[in-house]
Amino acid sequence: MLGQLCHQAGIDAIVLERRSRKHVLSRIRAGVLEQGFVDLLQEAKVATRMDTEGYPHDGTVISFEDMEVRVDFRKHTGTSVMVYGQTEVTRDLYEARDQTGGLTLHDVDEVELGNAALDGDEGCTVSFTHDGQRKTIECDYIAGCDGFHGPSRRAIPAEKRKEFERVYPFGWLGILSETPPAHHELIYANSERGFALCSMRNERLSRYYLQAPLTDRVEDWSDDAFWAELKRRIPSRIAETLVTGPSIEKSIAPLRGFVCEPMQYGRLFLAGDAAHIVPPTGAKGLNTAASDIHYLFEALKARYQERDAAAMGGYSERALARVWKTQRFSWWMTKLLHRFPDTDPYELRIQRAEIEHLATVESAQQTMAINYVGLPY
Amino acid sequence: MLGQLCHQAGIDAIVLERRSRKHVLSRIRAGVLEQGFVDLLQEAKVATRMDTEGYPHDGTVISFEDMEVRVDFRKHTGTSVMVYGQTEVTRDLYEARDQTGGLTLHDVDEVELGNAALDGDEGCTVSFTHDGQRKTIECDYIAGCDGFHGPSRRAIPAEKRKEFERVYPFGWLGILSETPPAHHELIYANSERGFALCSMRNERLSRYYLQAPLTDRVEDWSDDAFWAELKRRIPSRIAETLVTGPSIEKSIAPLRGFVCEPMQYGRLFLAGDAAHIVPPTGAKGLNTAASDIHYLFEALKARYQERDAAAMGGYSERALARVWKTQRFSWWMTKLLHRFPDTDPYELRIQRAEIEHLATVESAQQTMAINYVGLPY
Repeated sequence: MLGQLCHQAGIDAIVLERRSRKHVLSRIRAGVLEQGFVDLLQEAKVATRMDTEGYPHDGTVISFEDMEVRVDFRKHTGTSVMVYGQTEVTRDLYEARDQTGGLTLHDVDEVELGNAALDGDEGCTVSFTHDGQRKTIECDYIAGCDGFHGPSRRAIPAEKRKEFERVYPFGWLGILSETPPAHHELIYANSERGFALCSMRNERLSRYYLQAPLTDRVEDWSDDAFWAELKRRIPSRIAETLVTGPSIEKSIAPLRGFVCEPMQYGRLFLAGDAAHIVPPTGAKGLNTAASDIHYLFEALKARYQERDAAAMGGYSERALARVWKTQRFSWWMTKLLHRFPDTDPYELRIQRAEIEHLATVESAQQTMAINYVGLPY
Repeated sequence: MLGQLCHQAGIDAIVLERRSRKHVLSRIRAGVLEQGFVDLLQEAKVATRMDTEGYPHDGTVISFEDMEVRVDFRKHTGTSVMVYGQTEVTRDLYEARDQTGGLTLHDVDEVELGNAALDGDEGCTVSFTHDGQRKTIECDYIAGCDGFHGPSRRAIPAEKRKEFERVYPFGWLGILSETPPAHHELIYANSERGFALCSMRNERLSRYYLQAPLTDRVEDWSDDAFWAELKRRIPSRIAETLVTGPSIEKSIAPLRGFVCEPMQYGRLFLAGDAAHIVPPTGAKGLNTAASDIHYLFEALKARYQERDAAAMGGYSERALARVWKTQRFSWWMTKLLHRFPDTDPYELRIQRAEIEHLATVESAQQTMAINYVGLPY
């Protein structure tokens, strides 16, 4: 994404990818895009297919046992979110990059960012193994968009960064199935048996999730068991008409919040999962990566187009202010919708009161909508 | 309050009070009245002095370290809260009752509510010791407005009620001092040394609170120590001009949330602290007692004036719906503003993000304002 934006702005960029293109395009990831991300894709000129094939969603449903609240994004914010898979965004970006002739190296391994270089004024280098050869790139800046496990964050000396973490005592078991979605909008369900989410990719491809103990494995869950459990957790009117079918993907993921401060060090700039993780409740992972890219791209444009030498220096502070707000929202959504092992009867009543408060106080719905469609960059 | 309202509606009521009138009028209690409570006092025709001497507050200040957010009640709700001491409300109610000749018995002890009577159709009785004599009152209904430690709640058999509780790991140390208030509005301060609240009764009488460990005793805190600690916790611009003086009252109170369900049993109707306790953050204790009285009085009016035999049956459900929303708000305010012994660095950033979110999202301010001035009855 950043590579494509840089190309539009006349800034050269090389993309290093640890996996193969085929692997990248087979991963099932997020699927709900904030308006700001949609705008960014349009700015990057890769929005043609999304504009045609994506599904704008004007609201979402939150349920607590058999109580339902619809939060109307359009009414409360004037905008909506776009249901369009991360995998499809990646495909569109690949195609755009093919056309521009931008250099992307795949199957890159043993990446090293020299610390000394990062602090200097003379540009920096990235060394890596590719096609059996050791190579080095000299560059002005490094964008560390290499995920939680990548080498970028670790290239910041431990004493120069602070890490914040919240581990949740459960995971999400997800399936993808070639069935029509349960409902035309997403349903976030808090049931006495735990959380469930009815999501989708398109009219023939559904995505469902169940809160599950961290000790569960994918092999523990047959498709039949998944569907039976899902039906118990979602509002009965939805369960009654749910179309089931074989899963084409099934996976389980732990939930956690994580933030690294600062998000920059010398000439290295972290973005996305390299710097922060959110629990998926609220769909902020991909979207917060996108907002990082927005801030980083704005800084790069100021640096190269306006020769503003100080522009890069403000990246971390600007990005983090929004990162923490998305952590807050994801934490709130997660607490609101899940049954925790230590949820006591008092806490459960508070959860229900929060849902009833949301159902009856318009400004609470508006606050939820504003956060869900994405706070302004 | 209920006695006075009943008098206005031509319903006879006898008030039993465990303490002396002098004791009741010397207790320092709450001091911020919701608009609904103000309306109720006007309905009870005891608002004359409050209308003259009370201080309407159109907003409040929330601080986190040196960041400040003002929440504008007037702008977001069209209304305000009234700063007027509970002790003053009680004095006004006593004077009104004196004029109507309503019967209030003081120094009442050994109150008993016969369980059998509570379930019957034939009215009920309350027995008690007064002036050295055992007495019994026959009545249609009993309003259990006798506080957390009173006999009313316990008259509901344990298997017929469910109790919900949240204990907080700290208390509030409060002082009253004859000094001008630190600021013309309340300041709720979350500082790295813990919570502080600058409140007031009038232009010459201030009320301040500090979050303190449950192990602290009043004797541990000299006035000088209190003022020094307060100054460290509130925004420096406020600390710089703070006028200090000797305390005229000093007390420490634990914080907890508590709710009893249901709030009625046969001919007994619980109201206020007899049925629920909130932590004081958000000033919902007295105000929620008042909303109970509103619902109970509405039911009594329907019962006696419209001969609606079913009216009393809906009290608990109506009262509890609002009770849980005030529990939610008080819990949210308490979590937002205090440092908990287990607040970790992640949680602290979430607290700060919540304050920044409040500072930047108008609908979040509106939601806070709507709850603070009081949800509609």
